[in-house]
Amino acid sequence: MAIKVTSRSLEILIAISHGAEEKLGPQIESQLRKAIRTGTLHPGAPIPSTRDLATQLGVSRPIVVDAYAQLAAEGYLTLRQGARPRVSASAPTAAARAPIPARAEPRVRFDFLPAVPDLASFPRAAWLAATRDALATMRDAELGLSDPHGCAVLREALAEYLGRARGVVCDAEQIVITSGFAQGRALAARALVARGAKRLAVEDPGYSEWQTIVAAGLKLAPVTLDESGMRIDALERASADAVLVTPAHQFPTGVVMSGERRTALVGWLRARETVAIEDDYDAEFRYDRAPVGALQSLEPERVIYCGTASKMLAPVLRIGWLVVPYHLLRAVQAEQLLADYGVSRIEQHALARMFASGEMDRHLRRMRSRYRARRDALLDALAAELPEAEVQGIAAGLHATVVLSGDDDERAILEEARRRGIALEILGQHRLVPRAGSATLLLGYARMPEATMRVAVRELRDAIRSARSTAASRIG
Amino acid sequence: MAIKVTSRSLEILIAISHGAEEKLGPQIESQLRKAIRTGTLHPGAPIPSTRDLATQLGVSRPIVVDAYAQLAAEGYLTLRQGARPRVSASAPTAAARAPIPARAEPRVRFDFLPAVPDLASFPRAAWLAATRDALATMRDAELGLSDPHGCAVLREALAEYLGRARGVVCDAEQIVITSGFAQGRALAARALVARGAKRLAVEDPGYSEWQTIVAAGLKLAPVTLDESGMRIDALERASADAVLVTPAHQFPTGVVMSGERRTALVGWLRARETVAIEDDYDAEFRYDRAPVGALQSLEPERVIYCGTASKMLAPVLRIGWLVVPYHLLRAVQAEQLLADYGVSRIEQHALARMFASGEMDRHLRRMRSRYRARRDALLDALAAELPEAEVQGIAAGLHATVVLSGDDDERAILEEARRRGIALEILGQHRLVPRAGSATLLLGYARMPEATMRVAVRELRDAIRSARSTAASRIG
Repeated sequence: MAIKVTSRSLEILIAISHGAEEKLGPQIESQLRKAIRTGTLHPGAPIPSTRDLATQLGVSRPIVVDAYAQLAAEGYLTLRQGARPRVSASAPTAAARAPIPARAEPRVRFDFLPAVPDLASFPRAAWLAATRDALATMRDAELGLSDPHGCAVLREALAEYLGRARGVVCDAEQIVITSGFAQGRALAARALVARGAKRLAVEDPGYSEWQTIVAAGLKLAPVTLDESGMRIDALERASADAVLVTPAHQFPTGVVMSGERRTALVGWLRARETVAIEDDYDAEFRYDRAPVGALQSLEPERVIYCGTASKMLAPVLRIGWLVVPYHLLRAVQAEQLLADYGVSRIEQHALARMFASGEMDRHLRRMRSRYRARRDALLDALAAELPEAEVQGIAAGLHATVVLSGDDDERAILEEARRRGIALEILGQHRLVPRAGSATLLLGYARMPEATMRVAVRELRDAIRSARSTAASRIG
Repeated sequence: MAIKVTSRSLEILIAISHGAEEKLGPQIESQLRKAIRTGTLHPGAPIPSTRDLATQLGVSRPIVVDAYAQLAAEGYLTLRQGARPRVSASAPTAAARAPIPARAEPRVRFDFLPAVPDLASFPRAAWLAATRDALATMRDAELGLSDPHGCAVLREALAEYLGRARGVVCDAEQIVITSGFAQGRALAARALVARGAKRLAVEDPGYSEWQTIVAAGLKLAPVTLDESGMRIDALERASADAVLVTPAHQFPTGVVMSGERRTALVGWLRARETVAIEDDYDAEFRYDRAPVGALQSLEPERVIYCGTASKMLAPVLRIGWLVVPYHLLRAVQAEQLLADYGVSRIEQHALARMFASGEMDRHLRRMRSRYRARRDALLDALAAELPEAEVQGIAAGLHATVVLSGDDDERAILEEARRRGIALEILGQHRLVPRAGSATLLLGYARMPEATMRVAVRELRDAIRSARSTAASRIG
């Protein structure tokens, strides 16, 4: 049944259903709230007394009293003893709320951006189930400020997983849960500075967001790469106090650091009596064979290992982890206490459950085959449409490195691709020291369905060709 | 039906139920996983071939093949073409996992610690529902790295809520979502340092975790209080570049800053052309009348407002917010980018839904009356058991300030209380400049059920008496 609520010339209908899942009180609340928000009932407008409305709706008066009290608490109604209830003069109406300027996003038709996983594959149902489990089992005390460095249940799950999947050698206590790689890198860098480090050797080209490292007080010492990974002879010359590396799948070149090179790097760490920060960002995705173990497994006391849930699941979670040698653990934990009091305990427990239940392994296995299929589709499309291109770094990860001829201008290609709605990156964007070389494109395939791949690559080919012809016409 | 899986002398049973909710494959997986984890099936042990097991269980072979593949992916099994499947040599067994040393926690019988909300009242069901809504409606793109400074949906909900509940004047864009007050305070302090601030005036006694402010590069200028809040004459003399205040409910004294004092503080901000950091940590809980609006509402362009979900819901969430004047917004956002890429987007969306659905107001209304009842029970118990005590700061918040006689030794009382399993804090713990004065206890009542209050206070009274007698006997 429904009744009219009149306010001056306006009138709205309130309809309640006794069968409905939602209780009667909330039904009344939400309809009045909506009417006020939308301005159908305007500020100051009188509304029926609780007795009046209860009678008309045929519900018990306390239900209406409670609904009105709730709306008053929310600032929608003004209730005064003996006076007619009114919409409060300061009631939040849609009009009153400050409009948010929409951020202008360039329309992307084909998304080849590297290092972003397939967001459409985020296991929403599994994550919700894990959250339900967490909320059902966490003790009240665990809703307070427990260990800011991470919940024991997640540290244990990670110690077990990293041990078996990545060969990481650690006790659960050595794990520090962070709000993602960004924070982990910042904490590690600050801890090294606190221990007197001044120069950090980094891969060039490399993951190019250096601001946190510089802000932490470290100078950058760029070290070149070859097909085996970071060049240790160049590292020797860099006179650095520590080094940041991505051995499993170097970003952006996609090189997997060779065994010999890893041994040489460990030798350097021992000789310098220093540590490496190992960014293991997408090591779960290795396609040709079992993933190479982490560098950390070779020299646990000289490596700060960084992992993240961003590639395994989605960046949305903001959960990452550091595995820290005991001699640096206090320093890293001290830096974390200066940053914040840690990551949502509910999501930490949920993530722990994803591991414990085997859901994480199941998800990773599913994603590994999905990504392999997309990688293969990209390789086929490139072979067909860009036979002249040399494709590298495809053994693992979420992107391929496509080397074109030395005559091509990668920035011109980037621009032309943008114009055509193709999002991608180029090697030049990730160089510390500018260096001439063949034009090189970074194509992330994680979010590109096989069906679209051929069309996308054909569009990319056209972009490359028109960039070439523009260049030619400039010369001519 | 069930079959024996034999491994040397050991044997385990695998039972599968075709009726069960869980699919057949996962049933087989989980039982094998359990047997391996618990060591019933030890590393290297042979297990039946997929054909063999499928026949015995009477299920189709692909089911077993898939189950084995999953377990192999998890590192439990070794599968080799033509060879008998085995438990992998490196299978993660319970024994192999590093044991976590249990943290020794002092046994607390009566918890009077201030500034912690009632964790037992966390609305688990409502939070789960909000999370379900968030996961059901977030677009895939929103699972990536959206705006690191906060999701628009939460900023809008907060702008609306803070405007109506706290009188905060802001656009949604001025809100920066943080991982809680700890990070918010650090970002604000760093932004002020970046703008040249050197000395920060702080309330003494005050919220005593100063390390982040000092680490940010600010010197502390302690300013005394009286019954109207921070003394502005003392502030004048402190020659500070900015000030940190808790006007709604000063911690630890519980003083609510008077209107005159607020006006005087705004006068100082204008004269100095500087800003205040307003910590509005538990302002939702005002018992005698409608909460006093935030200081920010008096001078929006000269106040960085800090709020948190820790007291509203529970510290477990690690979500807080800053409302930043436009002229400081870029500086604060820049500091955040150096810290991390923001807070879990799923929890941000869930929190936004808590506000939009009215669940947050409903929860706060429930908690306000629950806390008021506990506060009243504490006051009754104190009146009966400690009539000599003067109780202050009870108009708002989650704790009462209990002033004893000048002869009492608050540290001795703290120690004696600890011995009796009573957790509380004393004023001396929060003084920057040591100062003689009446012994003062801080009693948080948020987590103390009314039924327990009398017993707890009686125990506290005994602690105080025995501390007095010990002191007396030392003198005599």
